[in-house]
Amino acid sequence: MYTYDYLFNFTKSVFLKMGCPEKDAEVIAEVFLAAEVRDHASHGMIRIKDYYELWKAGRINVRPDVRVVYESPSTAVVDGDNSVGMVCARKSMELAIQKAEKAGTGWVATRHSNHFGIAGYYAMMALKHGMIGICLTNANPLVAPTFSVSRMMGTNPIAVAIPTAKYPPFVADFATTPIARGKLAVAEKKGEKVAFGFVQDKTGTPSDDPTILKSGGSMLTLGGDRLHGSHKGYCLSAIVDIFSAVFSGANFGPFVPPSVAYLPVLEKKVGEGTGHFFGAMRIDAFQPAEEFKNKMDQWIETFRSAKPAEGQERVLIPGDPEREAEERIRIEGIKLVPAIKDDLIKIAGELGIDFK
Amino acid sequence: MYTYDYLFNFTKSVFLKMGCPEKDAEVIAEVFLAAEVRDHASHGMIRIKDYYELWKAGRINVRPDVRVVYESPSTAVVDGDNSVGMVCARKSMELAIQKAEKAGTGWVATRHSNHFGIAGYYAMMALKHGMIGICLTNANPLVAPTFSVSRMMGTNPIAVAIPTAKYPPFVADFATTPIARGKLAVAEKKGEKVAFGFVQDKTGTPSDDPTILKSGGSMLTLGGDRLHGSHKGYCLSAIVDIFSAVFSGANFGPFVPPSVAYLPVLEKKVGEGTGHFFGAMRIDAFQPAEEFKNKMDQWIETFRSAKPAEGQERVLIPGDPEREAEERIRIEGIKLVPAIKDDLIKIAGELGIDFK
Repeated sequence: MYTYDYLFNFTKSVFLKMGCPEKDAEVIAEVFLAAEVRDHASHGMIRIKDYYELWKAGRINVRPDVRVVYESPSTAVVDGDNSVGMVCARKSMELAIQKAEKAGTGWVATRHSNHFGIAGYYAMMALKHGMIGICLTNANPLVAPTFSVSRMMGTNPIAVAIPTAKYPPFVADFATTPIARGKLAVAEKKGEKVAFGFVQDKTGTPSDDPTILKSGGSMLTLGGDRLHGSHKGYCLSAIVDIFSAVFSGANFGPFVPPSVAYLPVLEKKVGEGTGHFFGAMRIDAFQPAEEFKNKMDQWIETFRSAKPAEGQERVLIPGDPEREAEERIRIEGIKLVPAIKDDLIKIAGELGIDFK
Repeated sequence: MYTYDYLFNFTKSVFLKMGCPEKDAEVIAEVFLAAEVRDHASHGMIRIKDYYELWKAGRINVRPDVRVVYESPSTAVVDGDNSVGMVCARKSMELAIQKAEKAGTGWVATRHSNHFGIAGYYAMMALKHGMIGICLTNANPLVAPTFSVSRMMGTNPIAVAIPTAKYPPFVADFATTPIARGKLAVAEKKGEKVAFGFVQDKTGTPSDDPTILKSGGSMLTLGGDRLHGSHKGYCLSAIVDIFSAVFSGANFGPFVPPSVAYLPVLEKKVGEGTGHFFGAMRIDAFQPAEEFKNKMDQWIETFRSAKPAEGQERVLIPGDPEREAEERIRIEGIKLVPAIKDDLIKIAGELGIDFK
């Protein structure tokens, strides 16, 4: 078990050694650790190696000039200059919040970025300002549209955070696929099959093989198959892709660059890097703030009082599982699986810093 | 078979007879007919009877004072004054477009409305202005959150329309449930079962009985069950509900008023009427307009060229099925099932107008 502070300081050191400015290294560490404590380890410390390898391959810019390249009173486009995703993502969300201060809402599309960790982190930044936060991102293509076998989209997540009065905030943060890719990796390591409805083989036949992506298979969109609404999941994923990449001038769909160095740079590009989309909305742009927050409390009370199905203990509010994980993990500490620990020890050795 | 014009003029006459101003009656007819030609008959002529009965029961306001009650440079809240949904919805979307003209984006939440037809109609209004259009609405509670058996949400749709250059626009318009409620009614009339994954019984057990809503059952969210991501469908539906109702001061969740007169007015209310949410975004708030549109064309070409699964002819772009239906139905005419035709003949008789 590791403490939050130990892993934060280690992560910061890694990115400092890679040449990031101190503030950037802190932001990166904060987002990685946010994933760990919210029990989304798939977006946490495991990704340090990916970034380290991209840096060694000269595929990431640790001294980026993140800048606004286009704007209107309530919108902007940010060029991330190939930065570590967290660096330009945080600046973009800060800009969305600034725009919202003046115009009521602020919307920022960001291009030439890389993997930015958990989308929920940026949506939740708005909460400190009493605002609603929204964050979308596209990602490496693994997912096939309905009726197709081509990997055209990432797991393209949607995050929305909404302020409340006395209750914890509403925080939804979810991929537009039935499961995260990480779950396939876990099943593979355990030698288990997965449920039908997550993946298909290269001909489009439903599969329960978690290794199917290695033989031309693809992930399915939320809904699973056409009968159960996979075309709606496809619509959602497509909207996320367009808002993140077409708005900003990033690569869309199958052209999103890999977030790992062991995959080659794509030959064709249709924009710059990975794309994100950020939104901030003042709640008093719609209602007096206290009224809005009290109404959200009432919404939460109403949904918490829904009758559980037989065998279920309670009905959850979006954000409950992650918040409860955070309360627990902040006390208990963060556990790293041996393979990740070994990777970090190796990286620490190469960079001349300490990790045990 | 009926022509578009015949049904448009008939629908307009019905609402004129009910006391609507001419312009309002035309808007209402236009939205009903948009549903018919886009092959969403569930939101078309079948709903005239519902509105007629609500009007007879004094539950709808045909001479509403639709007004802006709150605003910021990029946002507003509209009070629909209990109007026919289309009337205040169209005005709200027009306002969102006006706001976007000045601020880059415009966002309008609307309360005290009623059923407004198809969400896609309003999102598509933005296309004529070269803008992106967004429309959300809450609806009568039929859907249970994950782990629950309580009907807490409507089929809460999301519509997004995005301009293109040479290709037809991207238009996604979908409920946040695997299927529309109308499909249950169709299966019931045919005496057929439905697939598992759409509904559950009153204990939360999966069911294939399309009549299960009559015995305490509920519809499921997109994803179907927790394993396949129903909690993501729940998040989506909740976001639509909050944006539509908490932002505007309408009724949320289980308190959304019935859209039919044979269900009683609810005893408890937490706001005014049904709620909607509208967004308009100038594409040149993010990129030069031509560049944006060309990029959308490229996006569409890319996704159209995805490889079809075995047995599938082609991969669709959101909006393809409805547009193709419209091209066909505008030529072939609109077919009404006998039961709907009979209802309309009866209404016409009572109002002293002609329908055959």
